[in-house]
Amino acid sequence: VDKSRDINIGMIGAGFMTKLHSIAYRNYPVYFFPPAANPVLHTVCDLVSDLAETAALRYGYRQHATEWQAVVDDPAIDLIDITTPNYAHADVAIAAARRGKHVYCEKPLANTLVEARAMLSAVEDAGVVHAVGYNNRRVPAVAFARELITRGAIGDIYNVRAEYLQDWAIDPQVPMEWRFDAQRAGTGAIGDIGSHAIDLIRFLIGEYTAVFATHERHVRERPVSQSAVLGGARAEDLTSAPRVPVTVDDSVEFIARFACGATGMFQASRFAYGNKNTLGFEIFGSRGAIRFSNDRLWELQYYQGDDPADLQGYRTLKMGPNHPYGAAFWPIADLGLGYADIKTIEISHLMEAIAGSGSVNATFTDGVKAIEICDAIVRSAEIGGWVGIG
Amino acid sequence: VDKSRDINIGMIGAGFMTKLHSIAYRNYPVYFFPPAANPVLHTVCDLVSDLAETAALRYGYRQHATEWQAVVDDPAIDLIDITTPNYAHADVAIAAARRGKHVYCEKPLANTLVEARAMLSAVEDAGVVHAVGYNNRRVPAVAFARELITRGAIGDIYNVRAEYLQDWAIDPQVPMEWRFDAQRAGTGAIGDIGSHAIDLIRFLIGEYTAVFATHERHVRERPVSQSAVLGGARAEDLTSAPRVPVTVDDSVEFIARFACGATGMFQASRFAYGNKNTLGFEIFGSRGAIRFSNDRLWELQYYQGDDPADLQGYRTLKMGPNHPYGAAFWPIADLGLGYADIKTIEISHLMEAIAGSGSVNATFTDGVKAIEICDAIVRSAEIGGWVGIG
Amino acid sequence: VDKSRDINIGMIGAGFMTKLHSIAYRNYPVYFFPPAANPVLHTVCDLVSDLAETAALRYGYRQHATEWQAVVDDPAIDLIDITTPNYAHADVAIAAARRGKHVYCEKPLANTLVEARAMLSAVEDAGVVHAVGYNNRRVPAVAFARELITRGAIGDIYNVRAEYLQDWAIDPQVPMEWRFDAQRAGTGAIGDIGSHAIDLIRFLIGEYTAVFATHERHVRERPVSQSAVLGGARAEDLTSAPRVPVTVDDSVEFIARFACGATGMFQASRFAYGNKNTLGFEIFGSRGAIRFSNDRLWELQYYQGDDPADLQGYRTLKMGPNHPYGAAFWPIADLGLGYADIKTIEISHLMEAIAGSGSVNATFTDGVKAIEICDAIVRSAEIGGWVGIG
Amino acid sequence: VDKSRDINIGMIGAGFMTKLHSIAYRNYPVYFFPPAANPVLHTVCDLVSDLAETAALRYGYRQHATEWQAVVDDPAIDLIDITTPNYAHADVAIAAARRGKHVYCEKPLANTLVEARAMLSAVEDAGVVHAVGYNNRRVPAVAFARELITRGAIGDIYNVRAEYLQDWAIDPQVPMEWRFDAQRAGTGAIGDIGSHAIDLIRFLIGEYTAVFATHERHVRERPVSQSAVLGGARAEDLTSAPRVPVTVDDSVEFIARFACGATGMFQASRFAYGNKNTLGFEIFGSRGAIRFSNDRLWELQYYQGDDPADLQGYRTLKMGPNHPYGAAFWPIADLGLGYADIKTIEISHLMEAIAGSGSVNATFTDGVKAIEICDAIVRSAEIGGWVGIG
Repeated sequence: VDKSRDINIGMIGAGFMTKLHSIAYRNYPVYFFPPAANPVLHTVCDLVSDLAETAALRYGYRQHATEWQAVVDDPAIDLIDITTPNYAHADVAIAAARRGKHVYCEKPLANTLVEARAMLSAVEDAGVVHAVGYNNRRVPAVAFARELITRGAIGDIYNVRAEYLQDWAIDPQVPMEWRFDAQRAGTGAIGDIGSHAIDLIRFLIGEYTAVFATHERHVRERPVSQSAVLGGARAEDLTSAPRVPVTVDDSVEFIARFACGATGMFQASRFAYGNKNTLGFEIFGSRGAIRFSNDRLWELQYYQGDDPADLQGYRTLKMGPNHPYGAAFWPIADLGLGYADIKTIEISHLMEAIAGSGSVNATFTDGVKAIEICDAIVRSAEIGGWVGIG
Repeated sequence: VDKSRDINIGMIGAGFMTKLHSIAYRNYPVYFFPPAANPVLHTVCDLVSDLAETAALRYGYRQHATEWQAVVDDPAIDLIDITTPNYAHADVAIAAARRGKHVYCEKPLANTLVEARAMLSAVEDAGVVHAVGYNNRRVPAVAFARELITRGAIGDIYNVRAEYLQDWAIDPQVPMEWRFDAQRAGTGAIGDIGSHAIDLIRFLIGEYTAVFATHERHVRERPVSQSAVLGGARAEDLTSAPRVPVTVDDSVEFIARFACGATGMFQASRFAYGNKNTLGFEIFGSRGAIRFSNDRLWELQYYQGDDPADLQGYRTLKMGPNHPYGAAFWPIADLGLGYADIKTIEISHLMEAIAGSGSVNATFTDGVKAIEICDAIVRSAEIGGWVGIG
Repeated sequence: VDKSRDINIGMIGAGFMTKLHSIAYRNYPVYFFPPAANPVLHTVCDLVSDLAETAALRYGYRQHATEWQAVVDDPAIDLIDITTPNYAHADVAIAAARRGKHVYCEKPLANTLVEARAMLSAVEDAGVVHAVGYNNRRVPAVAFARELITRGAIGDIYNVRAEYLQDWAIDPQVPMEWRFDAQRAGTGAIGDIGSHAIDLIRFLIGEYTAVFATHERHVRERPVSQSAVLGGARAEDLTSAPRVPVTVDDSVEFIARFACGATGMFQASRFAYGNKNTLGFEIFGSRGAIRFSNDRLWELQYYQGDDPADLQGYRTLKMGPNHPYGAAFWPIADLGLGYADIKTIEISHLMEAIAGSGSVNATFTDGVKAIEICDAIVRSAEIGGWVGIG
Repeated sequence: VDKSRDINIGMIGAGFMTKLHSIAYRNYPVYFFPPAANPVLHTVCDLVSDLAETAALRYGYRQHATEWQAVVDDPAIDLIDITTPNYAHADVAIAAARRGKHVYCEKPLANTLVEARAMLSAVEDAGVVHAVGYNNRRVPAVAFARELITRGAIGDIYNVRAEYLQDWAIDPQVPMEWRFDAQRAGTGAIGDIGSHAIDLIRFLIGEYTAVFATHERHVRERPVSQSAVLGGARAEDLTSAPRVPVTVDDSVEFIARFACGATGMFQASRFAYGNKNTLGFEIFGSRGAIRFSNDRLWELQYYQGDDPADLQGYRTLKMGPNHPYGAAFWPIADLGLGYADIKTIEISHLMEAIAGSGSVNATFTDGVKAIEICDAIVRSAEIGGWVGIG
């Protein structure tokens, strides 16, 4: 094994996203063989020592820590990976960049545009590789959608519809957590899931020029729990637990205009019963259309407008060896890709970028862009009018 | 046969909608037996005599005419049915009401709110039965959706999404017709198809309080053809035909607020490749959700939020004898209902209203409401801000 | 109106199928205009006078009768339409043919092959038009499937799968009716619904050469009810009603071989929960595949094997004006066709055949073939081995 | 790390299945934490040294080998995992058992029943843990289907339909490989994919008592290629390559009877255009029904027959934290599971069995059973009659 290609990772955070990232690092060199670089799970860090220790044991980190500054300062570390709640992203990322570490940060990049821009400046000044975790770009069906659009397969883009819908927050007994707290999360559905849809459509059809939005808060306060995790704790009896105000949006709708001339309609909600985690879009062009929903993760629907009149119809394309990233996985389609597989593809881009042989999935510039758009959405919802972007 | 229950119909118009209405009148007493009243295809009227004559022959009208005034004046006529292009609705409807005829008018009720309100005044002053053709309310799955909402099955409504998408207008060689002409059609996608979605959601969750909209024109001029019909004439070579400007919208997106507290997101387009005629919606409430698309015309998707956690899932309900209007049709579900069947249900309401035993599907008041909302949409698109309704 | 084209119909039977046929006759000249011939609802006949009278009133027959012989003998009658239970088909059909009437008989043609062959001889000897009601051939998507197969679009046929599934009989309290009685129905799921699948695949890929089958009876006796109708009477309390044995099959599976070299697998059941009335098939060939299910009545799925590797996928074709029978209906797809519309198409073939300008949907020869295959299925199930056909 | 729980793996084979198994071993302790035992990728063995070396490097085996006997004899090895073509299973498995190693063997267990039974005797005599790779049992939706059946949720089983369809072999230019060779593969579609469906239904509803089958060979000879891999090599020009006979079946249909009284209908084919890798089933019972297809890998369709009449419908259940194995993966449903995730679940059973805290997914007894059924299928196809099982 060529140790010179080892990339020592300092993971800041030990929650659900750390699980996902760690599995992706572990699997990357196996699927993408030979790997461009070799991710080494070096140090995992969490304020709560037990969590850090368990994460180290579970995911195979060599060591664990409680002080992120020490990890950032550790000369052995090549890459800082940030999976903490949003409010804690900026300090870590900026410090890491200043120490010359590559930085990979979960989305949204930060809670404020000021922070996000400072993060971007820091990584650009340092000349390090920077990436933000908009993993959905790398769903093979999405990557192939982009390829089709680039080929001109659907012509000029007229309209787009996109949504990101979940339902885990509907029960008013779902306890308070950082995702419901503006101080720690910035926004609610907008930044947490809406930003995925925002980034995805930007990846597919280009820059936004303006948005018009409205957002809603359906449940105004929530009980405090000691054991809150995403979508969890419903079994716990919180009837008489103290309640605190929810300070973020629960759902958002917005209309967008794009530099390419297209118009878009977006919806994000954590209150959409029946939608556990639905990220979908439909893009209408002058020559055809494309449709995707991640509940059929390895399918793309494609309508080719110049098929013979009696043979026109949405085609269900099953992503396989003939499609993006297919060679890394299985010899035939419909064996199935999962959440960790998509993240592994994203990591492949990160490793190639660090190795100098490719580019990241999404840069901090993309992360800043997404926040600019989220900010514009919030402002639009406040003023009740269009807000320009860029 | 009890002749006293005959309702003599004067049909004004002889196009595609006349075909639909005529079949529905013919089938009504067969499906809904015994009928509340007996529609008699008495006179069909079109400015072009040949069209009127052919329609009479084809659909079984006793006679045909070219002057609508004469039909309206004919004392034998009980009900005036208006299927002409939108601009011609008001004069006929008002004259018919003044003559004491019941009036059934295709949607949208008129091209302007002034006209529509005058129509409403006329029918109210005359005390006649008045109905507007928002047939989609009577799709059994939609009617059952309303029943579920009324029962409280999905609780308080949080968000709704609705769309009406077609693709027949994408080809720039599709020739000019009245649907592309603001003078004759008022608006494009907004009134022609968007109004169906608007009315449908109003039927399901109640009054709109404000809208925010944007609309687009994708093809700016079209060739003139002598033989233009809906979606037709593409075979004709129009390369060197003269071109005239399109003066209506091709697609529209809007956000709406409702009196019940819900927020909605809407899209209507004639430029949505792959969607021949897709009218769909999804309604999210505090206790469940409902989903419909007319490409599965006799299905309703229903999510019951209080099912046991491991048995929750969207249910695909097949409308049959246990659902609205089911008794009129077939003994088991999944035999299939079609476009004319839905219109027949609508006619059953009209006949019951005339017979005094029921109420129409949608009144001119509903027609005025739809136009108020369409007007607000246009105005919002022009000013780039929210426009209140009601 | 040209009276010389009137076809006076004598309808024998007044149940659910009479409703369907009558509506189809009424609608035929409207959809298929100008009609090849003009069906006239002349006489409807049922042993129970009240049923006949009501049917006449409801569907618009000029008169009603209780003696089928009189209807068959009536010189005014041109066409005898038989919608009675199976056991009563042969006598009527043979008598009608001998009187020189055209004969249209619901499927299955008869309860025994002897009867069916006698029926065929009678109509052939008489030189009258003869048709059997395998309406599913005329679903536009099915007709288009046949067109694609004929074009060679899917190449040589390798395998086929077909099923006809219902669930109305699962409840053991569903009362006895003729469909559960071998004397009156011949077989159960085999003849009632299986024969539809059998005929459909024969229509699509040609002759059967052998079958291997097994069949089952899941509920062995049923209560007697005075008010039994298809799928009905569950509300009635039949707990203490007397019970009689069910004497037909409830479900059947069989494997078939075809003259074209293909192999097929079939399932028919009235005990398939969740399937109200599902008729579906998938046909695999050397160049492509075709898939249909009537719960998406106006869709055909088509896989074109020579599409570029990355753009291969099942296409969802929406039947519209560019597909079989489309011109008779609506200007765009996805407005919706229903059960009665399909029967109307079948009637269009019958009228064209009588007028001498076309051929029937399916002849008594097809009806005999279906019974030969059903007989072979029953025999195969009894002997537990292959039974050759033809 | 507790070294006493290390399970040193000797992997025999270095192809596509080795990739899958290796990833599953690597991921098991991460998803199923704390792991019951700790799989250590110790030695990978292939006749072709380069393949073994690359596999060791890629998947992280400590060493590689070319002689399987040496691996089996190595006292450091705890578990022999066999992913070679079928014909090579028996010798390795028997030798491993005799050396006291646990044995995990890919399916089908062997090419002949004699071999398979010898393997079973060997592992039983040795008292080692034995497992065969019928991974589809552990798709959470399948495991939940079994749970529902066990709960009685669908009542007595009446009928089942199952299919395993692929299309990679349709092109006659797909080169010869071991899967087309009876000597090395035993059978074609029957054992390779049909056996998955066979085992799955046995897992769900119990023992088979008899089968009736037919099988077909659609392409009779294939070109020889030096670089053949599953579904691959189509780019290679094999026009003038020498051709050798295909000696296995390409597709199979069979009917089965079960000890529980149910009847089943099965289809397996490598010639089913449009089906990349479709494993599906539908099970009909007296109280409900269940439906699954692996192209919606984390969905189960469930019909509850005692829902209110107007609210009955197939429910689409999304497998998540409330369903089998859900706790090991992600906090909400619809994030996505893939092929490797399913294999990881299977490995969790293997590790628990070795640790003494659980049982394997499927034992060699299950493997023998599947071969008994496959053998009966082949014999039935040869004699054209029912063949009893067990």
